[in-house]
Amino acid sequence: MHELARGFANCHRIRVRYADTDQMGVVYYGNFLTFFEVGRTEYLRSAGADYKTIEATRVTAAVIEARVRYAAPARFDDELLICTRVAEMGRLRFRFEYAIWREADCTLVASGHTEHVLLQHDSLRPVRVPDEIRGSIERFEAAARSRAPAAASAAVG
Amino acid sequence: MHELARGFANCHRIRVRYADTDQMGVVYYGNFLTFFEVGRTEYLRSAGADYKTIEATRVTAAVIEARVRYAAPARFDDELLICTRVAEMGRLRFRFEYAIWREADCTLVASGHTEHVLLQHDSLRPVRVPDEIRGSIERFEAAARSRAPAAASAAVG
Amino acid sequence: MHELARGFANCHRIRVRYADTDQMGVVYYGNFLTFFEVGRTEYLRSAGADYKTIEATRVTAAVIEARVRYAAPARFDDELLICTRVAEMGRLRFRFEYAIWREADCTLVASGHTEHVLLQHDSLRPVRVPDEIRGSIERFEAAARSRAPAAASAAVG
Amino acid sequence: MHELARGFANCHRIRVRYADTDQMGVVYYGNFLTFFEVGRTEYLRSAGADYKTIEATRVTAAVIEARVRYAAPARFDDELLICTRVAEMGRLRFRFEYAIWREADCTLVASGHTEHVLLQHDSLRPVRVPDEIRGSIERFEAAARSRAPAAASAAVG
Repeated sequence: MHELARGFANCHRIRVRYADTDQMGVVYYGNFLTFFEVGRTEYLRSAGADYKTIEATRVTAAVIEARVRYAAPARFDDELLICTRVAEMGRLRFRFEYAIWREADCTLVASGHTEHVLLQHDSLRPVRVPDEIRGSIERFEAAARSRAPAAASAAVG
Repeated sequence: MHELARGFANCHRIRVRYADTDQMGVVYYGNFLTFFEVGRTEYLRSAGADYKTIEATRVTAAVIEARVRYAAPARFDDELLICTRVAEMGRLRFRFEYAIWREADCTLVASGHTEHVLLQHDSLRPVRVPDEIRGSIERFEAAARSRAPAAASAAVG
Repeated sequence: MHELARGFANCHRIRVRYADTDQMGVVYYGNFLTFFEVGRTEYLRSAGADYKTIEATRVTAAVIEARVRYAAPARFDDELLICTRVAEMGRLRFRFEYAIWREADCTLVASGHTEHVLLQHDSLRPVRVPDEIRGSIERFEAAARSRAPAAASAAVG
Repeated sequence: MHELARGFANCHRIRVRYADTDQMGVVYYGNFLTFFEVGRTEYLRSAGADYKTIEATRVTAAVIEARVRYAAPARFDDELLICTRVAEMGRLRFRFEYAIWREADCTLVASGHTEHVLLQHDSLRPVRVPDEIRGSIERFEAAARSRAPAAASAAVG
């Protein structure tokens, strides 16, 4: 497991595009929410609960909150590692946490979280997290913890 | 009628956002297709055939071609004038043309066109342009020409 | 003053573009940070401290944190009112707060904040907020409060 | 070599993000210019003339024209293959051509081209394509043709 990935069940590599930058010469601050989305999608795929399948059941995961802390600028062509975990999973809402690293110099670029509720596609009424999805995520998080018990505690300390 | 708008039935003003720029310090080249979309939407609204209403009839305007010629860079906070006309309207396809000007110095920033077909929302089969929409657009273009006969020929010459 | 603008020194109207939407049929969650940027830029322009001028002094306002709370979906062609205020201004950092309303039905769509530090363009070292900018913002906020004393307290209550 | 890549010196795989889609449920038409940019960047990297290095020499590749033909919709989570070649290279301008395929069903999603000139970063004056870059690209294209002589002619026929 990658050193930077400690405490995160999934990591995914992307490369910064020219389109991602702004005239300050760095990644535009709003685009980190797109990077979080990529992390979330790849997390769910790895956990065996991919988002396309979830949407096919006429359920939609609405975002109710997003937060980003910007630690260092990311630049065109940087390779970034998006690390993702599910930090909380209640009956109706759940929270993803993210850390984005530049691999070349092991610099933390950004971190943050998003909170979600599941909604029925048509009525937009809240839906309980289905047992199948909950189970996939819990098993995925447990497997990550068992792979790296020291790492998990290191992330806390 | 604005001098720069000659030969175009509709013009709409926008301001360049920081998000639109890239690290070259100018508007990212792909964002001009968003500006064309804004021009198209405002054109249809002004012509009395607004796009939200069109989509509500379960018809979708698919883009089959887009072309942009970049004449001069646009920068953060520039006020741009997006001028739009319908240049051709066949039974099944139609073409919008655009010119984008920076108002401060009357500089042409970009021009281009998009070609569209109407599709049924579910089957994605081509649909004839409805008489009502065709009528709205023809009247709108005719009114623009009658407002500015000299201007229209000037645009050609 | 617009009823929805209570407690905010500046409001600015935008219209949702097709490009802003995603396949859920609503504005993509990351694009609200672009809307916040538009609010911030227009706030500074109205306060007489516009951002292009700030950047021309080789100072850059870096975002160190952003938070969005999503209250209701916004859709294509919605007219949104972006209300902006400066909530805190320390020696080195300051915080903008935002509320985005759909005007048609007076629905709060999103709210949130961003935190910024000023950096020297080349060294990327923190810079104190220049007195001139600080003065402009303080006068602008004071003028807003004096225009709407009841409103300001209503926003708290 | 991948069957779909015939006649193209470089291919690069991406996955459609949720952020790329619009309310029609497909990739927003403007985002294909971002996909072309990704193809171009990866082409240059593979050819040994990567764009970050080019920009470091204070030379900028400005786009003067872009054209996209939309053949089939691309959807969220589709894996796309962006195939890129340099089709013309004059003294002052050069042209990239692109074909974007959905791998799962070998469907052509979009094709098009972009035309570029090199500019000095500060003066924005046109610059001749440096011999080193020209050489890298010519060798890269020649190597691609020698790998697939039948394929190249098949692409023409």
